[in-house]
Amino acid sequence: MNRLLLSLSALLFCLGALAQERVERWGCYEISLPAAVSGNPFDVALSATFASGGHSVTVRGFYDGDGVFRIRFMPPEEGRWTYVTASRVPALNRKRGSFDCVAPSAGNHGPVEPDGRHFRYADGTRYYPVGTTAYDWMHVGDEAAAQTVESLRESGFNKLRMLFFLHNLPVEYPDVYPFVRKADGSWDYTRFDPAYFHYVERRLLALQAIGVEADLILFHPYDGGRWGFDRMSLEANLRYLSYITARFSAFRHVWWSLANEWDGVKGIPAEDWDRFAAAVSAGDPYHHLLSIHGYTATYYNYFDPVFTHASIQDHGPVLERGRAHTVSQIYKKPVLFDEVCYEGNVGSRWGWLSGQEMLRRMYNGLMCGTYVTHAETFNAEAGTSAEDANNFLAYGRTFRGESWKRIKFLRAVLDDLPNPPGLADHNWDEYTTTAGEGCYLIYFGNEIRSEWVFDLPVKNGPWARPQAGEKYRVEILDTWNMTVTPCPVVFETAAPGRYRIRDKEGRSVRLPDTPYLLLRIKKI
Amino acid sequence: MNRLLLSLSALLFCLGALAQERVERWGCYEISLPAAVSGNPFDVALSATFASGGHSVTVRGFYDGDGVFRIRFMPPEEGRWTYVTASRVPALNRKRGSFDCVAPSAGNHGPVEPDGRHFRYADGTRYYPVGTTAYDWMHVGDEAAAQTVESLRESGFNKLRMLFFLHNLPVEYPDVYPFVRKADGSWDYTRFDPAYFHYVERRLLALQAIGVEADLILFHPYDGGRWGFDRMSLEANLRYLSYITARFSAFRHVWWSLANEWDGVKGIPAEDWDRFAAAVSAGDPYHHLLSIHGYTATYYNYFDPVFTHASIQDHGPVLERGRAHTVSQIYKKPVLFDEVCYEGNVGSRWGWLSGQEMLRRMYNGLMCGTYVTHAETFNAEAGTSAEDANNFLAYGRTFRGESWKRIKFLRAVLDDLPNPPGLADHNWDEYTTTAGEGCYLIYFGNEIRSEWVFDLPVKNGPWARPQAGEKYRVEILDTWNMTVTPCPVVFETAAPGRYRIRDKEGRSVRLPDTPYLLLRIKKI
Repeated sequence: MNRLLLSLSALLFCLGALAQERVERWGCYEISLPAAVSGNPFDVALSATFASGGHSVTVRGFYDGDGVFRIRFMPPEEGRWTYVTASRVPALNRKRGSFDCVAPSAGNHGPVEPDGRHFRYADGTRYYPVGTTAYDWMHVGDEAAAQTVESLRESGFNKLRMLFFLHNLPVEYPDVYPFVRKADGSWDYTRFDPAYFHYVERRLLALQAIGVEADLILFHPYDGGRWGFDRMSLEANLRYLSYITARFSAFRHVWWSLANEWDGVKGIPAEDWDRFAAAVSAGDPYHHLLSIHGYTATYYNYFDPVFTHASIQDHGPVLERGRAHTVSQIYKKPVLFDEVCYEGNVGSRWGWLSGQEMLRRMYNGLMCGTYVTHAETFNAEAGTSAEDANNFLAYGRTFRGESWKRIKFLRAVLDDLPNPPGLADHNWDEYTTTAGEGCYLIYFGNEIRSEWVFDLPVKNGPWARPQAGEKYRVEILDTWNMTVTPCPVVFETAAPGRYRIRDKEGRSVRLPDTPYLLLRIKKI
Repeated sequence: MNRLLLSLSALLFCLGALAQERVERWGCYEISLPAAVSGNPFDVALSATFASGGHSVTVRGFYDGDGVFRIRFMPPEEGRWTYVTASRVPALNRKRGSFDCVAPSAGNHGPVEPDGRHFRYADGTRYYPVGTTAYDWMHVGDEAAAQTVESLRESGFNKLRMLFFLHNLPVEYPDVYPFVRKADGSWDYTRFDPAYFHYVERRLLALQAIGVEADLILFHPYDGGRWGFDRMSLEANLRYLSYITARFSAFRHVWWSLANEWDGVKGIPAEDWDRFAAAVSAGDPYHHLLSIHGYTATYYNYFDPVFTHASIQDHGPVLERGRAHTVSQIYKKPVLFDEVCYEGNVGSRWGWLSGQEMLRRMYNGLMCGTYVTHAETFNAEAGTSAEDANNFLAYGRTFRGESWKRIKFLRAVLDDLPNPPGLADHNWDEYTTTAGEGCYLIYFGNEIRSEWVFDLPVKNGPWARPQAGEKYRVEILDTWNMTVTPCPVVFETAAPGRYRIRDKEGRSVRLPDTPYLLLRIKKI
């Protein structure tokens, strides 16, 4: 997809609303209002209240340059919506209008919301986050960005972590920045450059078009003194958060990640992060997903109800099976391990996993009902420049590793489940995951077994327990080679023992001598 | 120690104050006030304000039967203290007095307080909780209680979990209960029976005398319909908490455990526990340690600042090395795994650990800077009654297992450390624990190794990192056989690598072929 296509998609999703009078549910309705104002147009307060069937939502607008103000709205319900604007600027005040919100088109399930320890889309469809990371993909040019989108579509990932502010990478960035410069060359943090936001929006909407959630990182410590966006004043930070939430909240697929490695952002006092969380939450009328990510094993106060989920950097809980269960039990909200080291060859311990190990960690988390984010980081090959590296973690573009190829298979495993996964019997049995009545997964990780004797826990998480005389089929899934092999035996349960229930004849499943096997067990 | 001795010790600690005019710091000063009141004397509000050097503390009194009211006070500072009482009952009002608070005697370090993720006594002495459990030891008679105290003194445990309310065990209990009965045989929850509190106090003070902290469990689900103390009204529950905090808060070694397995107490609505936590905290002017304990892997909201520490039932985090680190990183307050299954032979999976496994789990927790509580539960031997069982978990009395014998050795390991332990390099190295600059522990658990190559992480938790040219001695501790064997080699560090630092000659420690070894490594 080239720049023209990206622009067209943005046009269709947002600007199109003006012409149409019809917007789909969870789409983006946009009001454009020209107005000449004295002073800084970014200081103008503007809002609109949208009403439908006794329900009303007030959203803030923003200045978009060239004398145009915009107000974006994501209608949460179908039906006729009317609006009226409010501003001290007469040209922006008491503007009225209406539109019809129609049924969502295929692939539009609404924003992702927390659902206990898991997620669902607003339309009730289950959402299992299977994400990857490309910090600077939005900022390295249209061609690279188009490559990234194609790679994601190919891979099957449904979430991407990315930086809003530029990363200090050894590449040439387009000469466009979030703020405009003053005459002395320093940034004017009171004036945004809409051109930067326009291209970010094109990127975001390109992800939306392929069903990838945008986990947008609002601050990060990788500025390296190059631009200084990691050490703005508190006032500038809050102004930025106000503006970005006014602009992007109407995009249904945006998640707010306050920071990557917040404790590395030395220019922001630790106590400001709670304030930022409150600011983002207050600035976003739809309360999109919100979290914050720290250094290894930092564990921010994710208990604060402002955080919809925990976005954790720590490989400890996914080093072996069963460990992530404790983290899920503690937080009682969705747990994402957004950094568990990366597949790659960079010579640092956080980036030298094999593809097998990356994938094993993802399954270790999933078996406990937690979600593990992929990333890969490969150095440039000898004789090429840094920019030539297939370093998806930094630039996006194309994958070079092995684990990404197994993501569609992994998602198919998840999508097949009747309910989200979780350990059936706490850490009494760290192998057996339940996904509801009569549905189990058993993951062997890097162990090689010759057989699995049919043997399940009597406890079954929150679900109905297995009983005597039930018939089960078992499939052998090879998570690395992506094969599904049905076992010909139909098992039948004996009477449950105190802790375990077995096949009445003690039968077992023969297993191939390969690692990374997953058994899928279903009651007939 | 027989009943007479227990009574004498109570007398010395508490009642003695009246005669003496001198009470040691963190001792118990008691005012006794006779008063004839109309109505229920337990409804009388009584308090005293104690003042010394510009500092004042108001504490509540309580009715103790036989026409006597008492007010107990734990002076937090040395010096002259004066007091004045307050009550609507004239005989209890405006009583004034004074006493001298003198230096604490040997063994009195004051109450235990949280100190980051660890504990210290109020006098600054480090306190490492190494506890065991004897739910009903207070309620099974004076002789059994005296046996329990002797067993604890012998073993070296410094904390005991115990139930305030009777456990429904197959034994005859003394015919004394926390409440008096009405004419119809039902409990009068507005009138306490001081006799019950008197014997509980004797038991508590017997623990204080041997340096054992009393982790007092205020509610539990083991009533079995026998007395109904697990399904009192909210009003009765709050009255009970008010009375017990007024009586016991002046005992420096009392900890409040709101419940054992709170989620099993079906007579108490889940939302009441937060209210109880607030009531205990408000009723205790010294803010003794306070937590709550649930079923396996329940994880109450220990983030609430009212809880001084997490008191967890879950064996998952101590099944293998390194796992408990995550829990400590999450809570950032002291973590006690107060139930990780028990040494015993009871035929239930929570009570069939070997002594070796019990001890290994304790070390697994300690190496991560968390604390694991011991317990043992052995069935009665064939041909004997349940009451004859050496079931320390239920009755106290005498230990029958193997792990308790290793507790003094374990405590000596801890007491030798310059600082509390914790992983040196997060889960990048799950073997190596640091206790400060130049001090490490490496625990091999049930692994048998022929040697350990001198090889430490460069990261050292919050402490100064090892440098080139440092000299180290290594001792081999056998945690099961309780031996300490110095290694004759003096190691010398090479220049640190990126992640690891090694001996400049690559030397190693020869190890005996036994499990449960711990290396203690100290810079010379």
